[in-house]
Amino acid sequence: MRAVRFHGKEDLRVDEVPEPSPGPGEVQIRNAFSGICGSDLHVYFDPEHSGLDFTRPHPLTGATPPQILGHEFSGVITELGEGVSGLAVGDNVVVWPIYYCGECAACEKGLFNICRKIGFHGLTSHGGGMAELTTIAADKVHKLPANVGLEMGALVEPMAVGWHAVAQSGVKEGDTALVAGAGPIGIGVWFALRARGVRRIIVSEPSDTRREAIRGLGADLIVDPATEDLTARVRELTEGHGVAVGFDAAGAPAALGGALANLGPQGQLMVVALHEKSLDFNPIGLIFSEVGMRGSLGYLQPDFDEVIAAMHQLRAGEGMTILIGAGA
Amino acid sequence: MRAVRFHGKEDLRVDEVPEPSPGPGEVQIRNAFSGICGSDLHVYFDPEHSGLDFTRPHPLTGATPPQILGHEFSGVITELGEGVSGLAVGDNVVVWPIYYCGECAACEKGLFNICRKIGFHGLTSHGGGMAELTTIAADKVHKLPANVGLEMGALVEPMAVGWHAVAQSGVKEGDTALVAGAGPIGIGVWFALRARGVRRIIVSEPSDTRREAIRGLGADLIVDPATEDLTARVRELTEGHGVAVGFDAAGAPAALGGALANLGPQGQLMVVALHEKSLDFNPIGLIFSEVGMRGSLGYLQPDFDEVIAAMHQLRAGEGMTILIGAGA
Repeated sequence: MRAVRFHGKEDLRVDEVPEPSPGPGEVQIRNAFSGICGSDLHVYFDPEHSGLDFTRPHPLTGATPPQILGHEFSGVITELGEGVSGLAVGDNVVVWPIYYCGECAACEKGLFNICRKIGFHGLTSHGGGMAELTTIAADKVHKLPANVGLEMGALVEPMAVGWHAVAQSGVKEGDTALVAGAGPIGIGVWFALRARGVRRIIVSEPSDTRREAIRGLGADLIVDPATEDLTARVRELTEGHGVAVGFDAAGAPAALGGALANLGPQGQLMVVALHEKSLDFNPIGLIFSEVGMRGSLGYLQPDFDEVIAAMHQLRAGEGMTILIGAGA
Repeated sequence: MRAVRFHGKEDLRVDEVPEPSPGPGEVQIRNAFSGICGSDLHVYFDPEHSGLDFTRPHPLTGATPPQILGHEFSGVITELGEGVSGLAVGDNVVVWPIYYCGECAACEKGLFNICRKIGFHGLTSHGGGMAELTTIAADKVHKLPANVGLEMGALVEPMAVGWHAVAQSGVKEGDTALVAGAGPIGIGVWFALRARGVRRIIVSEPSDTRREAIRGLGADLIVDPATEDLTARVRELTEGHGVAVGFDAAGAPAALGGALANLGPQGQLMVVALHEKSLDFNPIGLIFSEVGMRGSLGYLQPDFDEVIAAMHQLRAGEGMTILIGAGA
């Protein structure tokens, strides 16, 4: 079969590789759609600083490059390995792509998304979504409902990143929020906030294209921080209270600083973006309003379940009800 | 009466001033002991960068320098103003020294400690603890139990700073903690952690004097970060898990960095110290373990109640039981 494989820095090839067969407890999937993640770009352009170590076999999967890419993907089950139940050939599915050790301090708490040895299907494993077929443990497979197509299914993974961050933020129905950055992750944060009953969501995004994209999805409070005074707008839109939660979904110092400065008393900033560089920061910025700043990474399986349920509701025209669940 | 008054930068005088009389709802206190706070030093040496504005009347108290100092103090009630009940002449008391507007976004949530117009008795008000007498609203007065003397009473205020930070941290009985800095605030954090049933508390402090001081109070896990490898010690003492909560009670970049780096999965760092300078910070340090960093400022009245109750228990030889209360 054909597969897109990462061989090294700026070296991506379409290779002919053997078809994988599902082992016990695994399924084989014919991949349909796969997104290209920011991490894929990092790996392609600068693997050494990607946060992943490609110089030796991954401690959990044993994989080394060449590595099939594609960790945000959908497909159709084509074969069941021994002992698999609850899934059938022909099911439309998406894959929770995380490998975890089950033994570290994070895994002991069920926080598999921050496992110290974490691996990803489609980044540091034997297969991925950018091949004709892949195999994966059945317990990482999530079925798509009939009204959520395979193309939308490939968005479950990136949307789950925002969903997880919103779950971690402690935001409550009726709170106000600020989302800095309207790329794919910022969009996921916006949807997740709506699903939790947050109506006043201020989006700050300097790119015209991205502002128009999120406006097209329904965002109504959008600020261009390059030409408008974000703080003045937030003050106006929150009647001087500042926002209860902020999200840095941009990874730029100005986005983080702007989100932090506009938090209300005991507000919470979630950092969802990966910052490439250090920034100048005075912790006193946390003190006078007792605000917090917390990192959020990836997603757990309940986040996948909840994103899929929200997509189902949207497609069914039910609107998204509040889906506060096990992902919190 | 005599009063220690701040007139301006490096200008402190013992002045003769009129004795204050209690208005309706106020009490008059004959001051006994008053501590010198880090803020007093800031104000004395560099009022312009103290975070307080001495150039115009305080928006709540109307006070301007010369200003009587002393906001961490104890005394004995000498006179009751009209309408005061529940207090009596001769009561040993301490004062919750905060003035708040009652109208801002913080006050609306009951977070008077971060009121946007906050004032302090003994810093930005008509009186303070470093005078023979002072007057204050009766509802800011806390009675000391018989077994907590006036000298110890003057420590309620600084101890409440640590108490409040620990309450805000979300720490639970049996958690592990790291306290960076063993000055008065670090000591308060240590006691508050003990009161909440935290037994493994690692104290990091480069000063010999301060290490010995906290050792004398009962601390048993003490690290000198200048000569020992803090991370290695935390790893050893927490069996590789990192601590659940950290406290920056030092205000130095190395203290904050060390505390942050030694948090376990979803750990929480409370910043209790005021950093004078910005530091180099990469938010990615929050991401891979989903850790948080939050500011804590001052105290609320329930923090005072709980500190006094803990002091009473200690003096009564009851040990401190867990006093998780309204200050959280």
